[in-house]
Amino acid sequence: MSNGTTAVRAFAAHEAGGRIEPFDYELPPIAGDDVDIDVEYCGLCHSDYSMWSNEWGVAAYPFVGGHEVVGRVRALGPEAKGLEVGQRVGLGWFSRSDLMTRESLGGDHNLSPGNEGTIIGRHGGFASVVRCQSVWALPLPDALSVEEAGPLFCGGITVFNPLVQFDVKPTDRVGVLGIGGLGHLALQFLNKWGCEVTAFTSSPDKAEEAKAFGAHKTLDSRDPESWKAAYGTFDMLLSTVAVDLDWGRLVRTLGPRGRLHLVGVSPSAVPLHVTQLMSNQLSYSSSPLGAPAVTARMLDFCARHGIAPKIEVFPMSKINEAMAHLHDGKARYRIVLEADFN
Amino acid sequence: MSNGTTAVRAFAAHEAGGRIEPFDYELPPIAGDDVDIDVEYCGLCHSDYSMWSNEWGVAAYPFVGGHEVVGRVRALGPEAKGLEVGQRVGLGWFSRSDLMTRESLGGDHNLSPGNEGTIIGRHGGFASVVRCQSVWALPLPDALSVEEAGPLFCGGITVFNPLVQFDVKPTDRVGVLGIGGLGHLALQFLNKWGCEVTAFTSSPDKAEEAKAFGAHKTLDSRDPESWKAAYGTFDMLLSTVAVDLDWGRLVRTLGPRGRLHLVGVSPSAVPLHVTQLMSNQLSYSSSPLGAPAVTARMLDFCARHGIAPKIEVFPMSKINEAMAHLHDGKARYRIVLEADFN
Repeated sequence: MSNGTTAVRAFAAHEAGGRIEPFDYELPPIAGDDVDIDVEYCGLCHSDYSMWSNEWGVAAYPFVGGHEVVGRVRALGPEAKGLEVGQRVGLGWFSRSDLMTRESLGGDHNLSPGNEGTIIGRHGGFASVVRCQSVWALPLPDALSVEEAGPLFCGGITVFNPLVQFDVKPTDRVGVLGIGGLGHLALQFLNKWGCEVTAFTSSPDKAEEAKAFGAHKTLDSRDPESWKAAYGTFDMLLSTVAVDLDWGRLVRTLGPRGRLHLVGVSPSAVPLHVTQLMSNQLSYSSSPLGAPAVTARMLDFCARHGIAPKIEVFPMSKINEAMAHLHDGKARYRIVLEADFN
Repeated sequence: MSNGTTAVRAFAAHEAGGRIEPFDYELPPIAGDDVDIDVEYCGLCHSDYSMWSNEWGVAAYPFVGGHEVVGRVRALGPEAKGLEVGQRVGLGWFSRSDLMTRESLGGDHNLSPGNEGTIIGRHGGFASVVRCQSVWALPLPDALSVEEAGPLFCGGITVFNPLVQFDVKPTDRVGVLGIGGLGHLALQFLNKWGCEVTAFTSSPDKAEEAKAFGAHKTLDSRDPESWKAAYGTFDMLLSTVAVDLDWGRLVRTLGPRGRLHLVGVSPSAVPLHVTQLMSNQLSYSSSPLGAPAVTARMLDFCARHGIAPKIEVFPMSKINEAMAHLHDGKARYRIVLEADFN
């Protein structure tokens, strides 16, 4: 640390898909409403993989991923409010918002135009220290496991946010598509939300796992009879998959006022004809990560109900192995990297 | 009338798209919760045209169209409640529901499975008498014009229902696509609802008419600059058109939590990619006609605010001329047939 700058030890790729190596850089002196976090753990999300491989064409190199951070407040800018040095916080996909937009003023920081992403155009949490605007550093309830909490800040809030946004009711029947990093959290949330929860699965062992996470029922997606029995029965379908599905068949499983909600990025457009939606008043929608106030409610909900991701922990220095594990589809269900810089 | 049956004088086509001719038939003795209506006026809706020409493949012949009926109660079945002989009522697209489904019990008769359509598998309102279940015969407020009210029961409720269903707020900014039979009513409803109303138009004379119906602004759909200025500004787009539009450009005009809602039947599927909806939390949806309780609220709203369709009246005996006028796109804005059987 010299001239008030902060030395950061990180892991970076120097080209798209290149090997991730130790990388040191300096943060300028802290100012404004910024907060610096000493990283303890950071989840490895599929969007870290997408950015690392420059799938979306917006990555800059050296690229430091990581946007599911848990750690302790190291330093606060003079205008950072509501946090104390040493306090444990989490940081997710967004790292900064214009607080004076209508959206932010209304509590919808996540919908505010021009939000900064934690790993877009700046360095993320695969590092000893990460910086963000204080509003996006969420205090971690004591009841949550420091090791496990990271994935809640991206994977978790992605599937929790729609329950709040679309006023999902405890009497609703909800189907979850894709029982992976996001889906296994969705099953837990929905179960504690009071809903009737159905996991769409394609193998009997996945069905058992889904039930352990909170599914009351499973629908075998390879069985035509299961589909027939499900027609008209769901209030919401929550898709976390990144593949194209038979959307026409899926919307047939929705009952009156049903909603097909995608948080996974399916490769192709979803071609729904208006007549597939009209008679039952159906909607097709998507949503981004949640706002700080909703994220805080999610953390409380997790603490109250003992909800946590099922994780595999790698030392951060083994990030290349962790990335390969993720890429091979072996993550059960979410990978967390433990900072091991010392 | 013999054996309690009712002689009905009607207009029917005997084949798809065939000339519509006088046609007499008998209704069986009235029973249950049925009501017979002496037809005074009946709107001519584009779906009468579609059924007449068997566009949807579900028409039976002889085909008697007409599902925007206004008239007086002629007779009541023993279980028909809440109506009196001689009372003025209206009848729309639906003529019968199973009252014991969850949907009907919840007030959503329009979403109940197996609803009977007034002109599907039975004879409609281009006739001296039409029969329906009493729940679908809505009392007409005295303040409404008997001549003008018919189109409210299909065209009107189609565009009013979404305002109720999706909780459109007086502070919302709503764009209307297609300023015809449905659209000119949507502009009136939205104006009195308190919204900022924009009509999408492609000609200056249409723009002036749209303003007269209640649009505060118009967007010239041929002008790229108008589109650019509109990006991110709407809470809802209500499309009444039956053509394919540039949906990608349209959803760009939606702001946070915006909704693209189609009540017009565009020929092709609407191919929206999840990433077009995600960051602003957008929805794409459709809805059918409204339930009786919502229709009654619409009638009250029309009475309070002086809302009425702009109509052209033809004698019912000139139904072939009226159908041609409709087909040629000349209706300004809604055709009503006056029963002239005597």
